[in-house]
Amino acid sequence: MGETRKDGRGAKEMRPLVFHPGVAPQALASVLVSFGKTQVICAVSVEEDVPGWMKAQRVSGGWLTAEYSMLPYSTTTRKKRSNNGKPDGRAVEIQRLIGRSLRAVVDLETLGERTVWVDCDVLQADGGTRTASISGAAVALQLAFRRMMQEGTLASNPMRQLVSAVSVGKVNGEALLDLCYEEDSAAEVDMNVALTERGEYVELQGSGEESTFTPEELAQMLELAHGGAQQILAAQRAVLGD
Amino acid sequence: MGETRKDGRGAKEMRPLVFHPGVAPQALASVLVSFGKTQVICAVSVEEDVPGWMKAQRVSGGWLTAEYSMLPYSTTTRKKRSNNGKPDGRAVEIQRLIGRSLRAVVDLETLGERTVWVDCDVLQADGGTRTASISGAAVALQLAFRRMMQEGTLASNPMRQLVSAVSVGKVNGEALLDLCYEEDSAAEVDMNVALTERGEYVELQGSGEESTFTPEELAQMLELAHGGAQQILAAQRAVLGD
Amino acid sequence: MGETRKDGRGAKEMRPLVFHPGVAPQALASVLVSFGKTQVICAVSVEEDVPGWMKAQRVSGGWLTAEYSMLPYSTTTRKKRSNNGKPDGRAVEIQRLIGRSLRAVVDLETLGERTVWVDCDVLQADGGTRTASISGAAVALQLAFRRMMQEGTLASNPMRQLVSAVSVGKVNGEALLDLCYEEDSAAEVDMNVALTERGEYVELQGSGEESTFTPEELAQMLELAHGGAQQILAAQRAVLGD
Amino acid sequence: MGETRKDGRGAKEMRPLVFHPGVAPQALASVLVSFGKTQVICAVSVEEDVPGWMKAQRVSGGWLTAEYSMLPYSTTTRKKRSNNGKPDGRAVEIQRLIGRSLRAVVDLETLGERTVWVDCDVLQADGGTRTASISGAAVALQLAFRRMMQEGTLASNPMRQLVSAVSVGKVNGEALLDLCYEEDSAAEVDMNVALTERGEYVELQGSGEESTFTPEELAQMLELAHGGAQQILAAQRAVLGD
Amino acid sequence: MGETRKDGRGAKEMRPLVFHPGVAPQALASVLVSFGKTQVICAVSVEEDVPGWMKAQRVSGGWLTAEYSMLPYSTTTRKKRSNNGKPDGRAVEIQRLIGRSLRAVVDLETLGERTVWVDCDVLQADGGTRTASISGAAVALQLAFRRMMQEGTLASNPMRQLVSAVSVGKVNGEALLDLCYEEDSAAEVDMNVALTERGEYVELQGSGEESTFTPEELAQMLELAHGGAQQILAAQRAVLGD
Amino acid sequence: MGETRKDGRGAKEMRPLVFHPGVAPQALASVLVSFGKTQVICAVSVEEDVPGWMKAQRVSGGWLTAEYSMLPYSTTTRKKRSNNGKPDGRAVEIQRLIGRSLRAVVDLETLGERTVWVDCDVLQADGGTRTASISGAAVALQLAFRRMMQEGTLASNPMRQLVSAVSVGKVNGEALLDLCYEEDSAAEVDMNVALTERGEYVELQGSGEESTFTPEELAQMLELAHGGAQQILAAQRAVLGD
Repeated sequence: MGETRKDGRGAKEMRPLVFHPGVAPQALASVLVSFGKTQVICAVSVEEDVPGWMKAQRVSGGWLTAEYSMLPYSTTTRKKRSNNGKPDGRAVEIQRLIGRSLRAVVDLETLGERTVWVDCDVLQADGGTRTASISGAAVALQLAFRRMMQEGTLASNPMRQLVSAVSVGKVNGEALLDLCYEEDSAAEVDMNVALTERGEYVELQGSGEESTFTPEELAQMLELAHGGAQQILAAQRAVLGD
Repeated sequence: MGETRKDGRGAKEMRPLVFHPGVAPQALASVLVSFGKTQVICAVSVEEDVPGWMKAQRVSGGWLTAEYSMLPYSTTTRKKRSNNGKPDGRAVEIQRLIGRSLRAVVDLETLGERTVWVDCDVLQADGGTRTASISGAAVALQLAFRRMMQEGTLASNPMRQLVSAVSVGKVNGEALLDLCYEEDSAAEVDMNVALTERGEYVELQGSGEESTFTPEELAQMLELAHGGAQQILAAQRAVLGD
Repeated sequence: MGETRKDGRGAKEMRPLVFHPGVAPQALASVLVSFGKTQVICAVSVEEDVPGWMKAQRVSGGWLTAEYSMLPYSTTTRKKRSNNGKPDGRAVEIQRLIGRSLRAVVDLETLGERTVWVDCDVLQADGGTRTASISGAAVALQLAFRRMMQEGTLASNPMRQLVSAVSVGKVNGEALLDLCYEEDSAAEVDMNVALTERGEYVELQGSGEESTFTPEELAQMLELAHGGAQQILAAQRAVLGD
Repeated sequence: MGETRKDGRGAKEMRPLVFHPGVAPQALASVLVSFGKTQVICAVSVEEDVPGWMKAQRVSGGWLTAEYSMLPYSTTTRKKRSNNGKPDGRAVEIQRLIGRSLRAVVDLETLGERTVWVDCDVLQADGGTRTASISGAAVALQLAFRRMMQEGTLASNPMRQLVSAVSVGKVNGEALLDLCYEEDSAAEVDMNVALTERGEYVELQGSGEESTFTPEELAQMLELAHGGAQQILAAQRAVLGD
Repeated sequence: MGETRKDGRGAKEMRPLVFHPGVAPQALASVLVSFGKTQVICAVSVEEDVPGWMKAQRVSGGWLTAEYSMLPYSTTTRKKRSNNGKPDGRAVEIQRLIGRSLRAVVDLETLGERTVWVDCDVLQADGGTRTASISGAAVALQLAFRRMMQEGTLASNPMRQLVSAVSVGKVNGEALLDLCYEEDSAAEVDMNVALTERGEYVELQGSGEESTFTPEELAQMLELAHGGAQQILAAQRAVLGD
Repeated sequence: MGETRKDGRGAKEMRPLVFHPGVAPQALASVLVSFGKTQVICAVSVEEDVPGWMKAQRVSGGWLTAEYSMLPYSTTTRKKRSNNGKPDGRAVEIQRLIGRSLRAVVDLETLGERTVWVDCDVLQADGGTRTASISGAAVALQLAFRRMMQEGTLASNPMRQLVSAVSVGKVNGEALLDLCYEEDSAAEVDMNVALTERGEYVELQGSGEESTFTPEELAQMLELAHGGAQQILAAQRAVLGD
C-alpha cells in the first residue's frame, strides 16, 4: 500500500499522455493517442447519409458510430483478425462503449443528415485501450468538426464539450489510476469512467470478475477517476490549442 | 417529482417479482422469472469439459458462460433471429454482463473441470431484461448446484452468495427504480447494477446516451439500486426456501 | 405385438394433448402445445409487407413463413444455438414442412399484402416436435386471424380449415402412433402426416433410414395417422371453442 | 383427362432415361443421368474416415452423405451459387432426402470405417432433379462398390439392392408420372417416391402447397410411382449389365 | 534437356485441345473445354442489369464477371465445396484473372446495360485449369454474342478479338509449355499468359515460389507461350467455324 | 511523351522512399514504409507452430503467410472493414502475392517448425500499396530474423536475399514507373514486378483491363521495373545498415 508502482508512478498518476494529430492523412481528422505504451489510431470519417433504421423510424439529425479493433501486431502473441464473420465479443462491447460516450457530447441535430464514423485501431496494447480510444477520439472529433466548419459544411460545432475516459482498479486491495496491462491482469476490480469537462458522468462501467467491491471502494475509485480525467483534459486542451 | 408512476408504483418500488422454477424440465435447472410484464426463461446446463483456451493456458477449475437472446415474439414488432452469422451487438454486450455477474459469485475451482451454460431467452420484453436475466439465472444456478450436490457430482456448493440485478434511471429528472420499457425509452440516464447479498457491487454500468449525470445523481440512483436489490433478494430467497 | 407401451398407451393412442394459449403475450397470438412431454411455443406475428421475390415476380396476396428451433435446454445434452451462420439441416427441413402445411389451408389472397411469421420454439423435446409444431401453430394461426378480424384488419378469415399433424412409425415390426423419443430412436420407419379437418392429406413424409416399408405397412400407418388426427382435431376445436 | 401430354407422353410414361457412366473421370465412379432434358452429374468419392459425431458416439461402421447443388447455368435465369454462407433451404432438404434414400439400401457395417460422399450437380434442370439424382447416384454407387471390390478395398458389396426414385403429381386434376418443369409448376400435388427393387418404399414425400389430396388420389399416384420405378430400374440394370 | 515428356509431347507442344459446345443447354452458350485430361465447363449467362457500384458511380455500358470453382470430384481426393462462407483464396485469384482477361477483349459500351456472367466449373483437374477456363470461356462468349445478335438483343458484336491463355513453366531447368499436374507440382517457375489474336498481352502472371527466374528464362518462356497461343487459337477458330 | 509528371518526377523515377522501423513495438519487427503518400505498416510475428495442412502432408520446415488490409481511413471515402465474412477479392489476391514474393527468398527449412505472419495494413493509399507492402515487409522480415538470431532462436538467417517490388504502367501511351493513384486510375496497362537483389524475377503480374500490350511495351516496362528496384534496394539497404 502506498508504494509507488513498477514504473515509478503514484497511485493517482496517469501514464505519459501524447496526442499526435494527423497520423492518417486521408481521414477527415486523426490522432495517434498514447497512454504510456498503449497506442491507438483514432480517425474520423463522414458519410453524407444516415443508417437505414433512422430513415425507417423517421428520426431526424445525424448519427455517430464507432469501430474498435486490435491490430494483429498490437500484442506480443499475434491476435487473429476477426474477418471470418465470427463476432469478437470484447470488441463489440468496447465499440458500443466508445460510440455511446461520444454521442453523449455531440448534438446529433446540429450534425445534420450525416453519419460520423470513428475508427479506433490499437497499434500497441498495454492496458487502457478503450479509455485511450475515447480520449483520443474526442480530440479527433473536435478537429474534424472544426475542419467541417472551416470548409463550410457545418454551420456550428455539434460537440458540446470534450469527453475523456480513464480506467481505475483495485489491485492487491489498493485503488490505482490508469492500469497498465500487468496491473490490469492482477486487478480484482476494473472500472472505466467517461467524464465530461464539467465533471459529469457519461459512462461508468465497473466489474469485479473474481471479486466484488464495497460502496467505500467505489467512492475511492471514482475520486481517482475524476483526478485522472483532469489530467487527460489538460492534455486534450493543449493539443487543441484551447 | 414524487408522483406515482403510470402503473401506480412509487419511485423506489420494484414491479411484481415472480420466480417460477421448472419451466424447462430437460435443463439441469430452470426458472421463468418475471419483473412485471418482462419474462425471461433462465436455464442451466452443464458440460463435462472446459473451453479450449483454458486447456491451452492450463487454467485449472471450471468455466461459466451465458447466452442471451430475445425470442422473435417477445416484442410487438417481431424481432429477427440472429442466426445468419451477423453479431447482434446489444445481445453480445448483455450476455457478457450476465456471465461476469454470475462468475463473480461462483468459485470456479470448486466447480471442477466443467462448463456451466446459462441460457436466458426473453419471452416477453418490457424493460429490464438483463437485470431479470441475472436475477433469475442466480436462482436457476443455485437450484442446479443443489441438484448436483444431491446427485453427488459436486462435493460442495460453488456459489458463494446470491446475486441480484436491478435497473435504475433518471426520467424527466427523477430517479426511478426498475424501469419498464416506456420509462426506459424516455430515460436520460440508464444504469444497471448487480449486487451481492452483502450489498457489494458485482457490476455497475451507467450510461447517459443523450445526457450526463452528476455525482449527486449517481449517489441517488445507487441508493435506489440497493433498495431494489433487497426486494429481489427477498423474492429469490423465498423461492429457494432459504 | 399388441402389448401396451412403456407409458401404458395403446398403439393407436395419442399422448395427452394440451393447447395453452397466450404463453407469449406480445405475439399477435401464441400457444404452448404439449404432446406428452414434448412442449413447443407456437407464436404468430404479422408484418405489413411481403417478401422481395413476391414483389419481383408481381405475385399478389400475402405470404406465410415458419421458423423452427430447439431451445438449447430442450434436450438433456445442451443443444448449441445455430447463430453462427451454419445451417442446421434438420431445422431447415422442418421449418419448410411447417410452412407448407399451414399455407395449404390458408388463402393467401384473402390474407392481403402481409407476411405471417409462425415461430415454433421447442421448450422440451421428446419426439414429435414437428407434428406438435404444426398442430399448435394451426391453433395460434386461427386465434391470430380471429383477432385481426375483431380489430378490423381482416374482412374475412383466410384459414379454410384446421390442419393437424401426427407421427406414426414402425417399431419392432409394429405400427405405433405418436412416437416418443425413445420409440422414435428405435423406429425402422418414421412417418409424419399432416391432415385437414376433412381427412385430406396436406403433407406426407415417410422415411425408412435403416429399413424399408411395404404398401401394406404404409396402409396400416396411414390408418393410424387418420385416427390420431381426429384426436388432435378434437383437442384443437376444444381450445378454440368450436 | 386422358389426353397425351405436350411432349406426346402418356400419363404413366417416363421421359427418355439415359445413364452415362464415367462423366467425371477422377471420381471413384460417376454417372451423367438424364430424365428427358433434366441432367445431373452424380459422382461418388470415398474418404477413409468417419464423421466426428460417429467417433464421439462410438457408432461402428461407415457413413454415406450427399450434397446437391444446381449449377448456375442449369436454369435459363442464372442461379446464384450459395457460396456466401447462406443456407439454400431447398438444397438442404433435397440432399438430406438423397442421403437417406441411399443409406436405406447400403449396409454401413459392411462399408467399414469410411465416408462415402455422393455429389449431385444439376447440369440442366427441367423438373425431377431430385429423383434423377437418387436414381443416378444409385448407379454410381453400385459402380463405385464394384470397383472397390475389384481393387480389394471391400470384401463384399454393401449395397443390398438398387433404389430408384420418381415424381408423380396431380395436374389439372389428373395424376401424371415424372413431371417436367412446366407440369411441376402447374401441379396441385407434388410427390416424390423412392422405391427398392422389391417394390418397397424407402422415402415418400407428398405435398399439396395450394391444394390437398384424398386417400384415393394418393393410391392413384402411388400406383403410377410403382410403374415408373420399374421403368427406371430396367434402365439402371441395363447400364450396370445386370 | 530436350527429351520428350512422360506423355510423349515435345517441350513446345500443347496437349490435345477439344472445344465441345452446348454442354449446358440452358445457358446462353456453353463449352466443355479439354486441355488433355483437364476438363472445364464454361457457360455464359446474361442478366439485364448492372452491378450496384456501376449505378452508384454512374459508369455507362455493361459488365462482365467470372466465377471459378472446382467440382468436388474433379480431383482424386475429394475437394470440399466452399459453400460455408470461407473464401477460397486460390479460386478468388483465378476468377479475377478470368474476368480481367475477358473484359480486355470485350467492348463494355457495345454490350449495353447488361451483366455477362461467365461460369467455369472444373470437371477434371490435371493442371492448367485457369488457362483452359479462359480459352474455353472466350469461345462460349463468342457463341453467346453471336446468338444475341441473331436474336436481335445486340446490334453488333462486343468482342473485339479472341483471347487464349496458356501456362508455361520451368521444370528441372527446362522451359515447358502447357504443364500437366505432375509437371506443375515439380515446376520451379509457373507462368500463365493470356494473349490476343494479334499476339498482344492481356495478362501475364509469373511466379517462382521456390525459385526465381532470369530475364533470359522469361524470354524463353514467353516465346513458348506465343507458340502455344497459336495452337489454341487454331482450335478455337475451328470450333467457331472461322 | 517525355514530359515530367504532375509531381515533377521523370518517367523512370520512384517517389520518395522512407522505411521507418519500430512503428509497432509489440511486433517482433515492424516498418512503416512510404512510397510518396502511400504508407503501409508492415509487421512480423512468429508462431511456434505450422499450419494443419503441413502436418497432414508431413511437409518439413516452416511456413510464411501474409495478410493485407486497407485501414478504413486509408482512403478519402471510408473503406468498410471486411469483418463480415465476405471475402474482399482484391485483398485476397494481394496477400497471396505478398506471401509468394517473400517465400521465394526465404529458406523454409532453415526457418524451422514455425509460422511467420506478415501483416500489411495500409495507413494511406495513393497507388502502389502492394509493391510498398512487399518492399517494406522484406525489411521487417530481415529485422525479425536478425533479432531471432540475436535471441538465439535461429541459428542462421533464412532470408537468402532481399526482395523489392515496384509498379510500372502505360499511361497515355507512355511507360511510367511507380504510379500514384491518379496515374494508376488512368493507366491502360498495370504491372507489378517483384525482383531479387540479383535482378531475378520473383513475381511478374501484368494486366491490361481496357487495353493490351505488345512485346515491345513489355520490354520497356520491365526495363523501368529493374531501374525502380535498384532505387528501392538502395533505400532498403540503407535502413538495414548494409
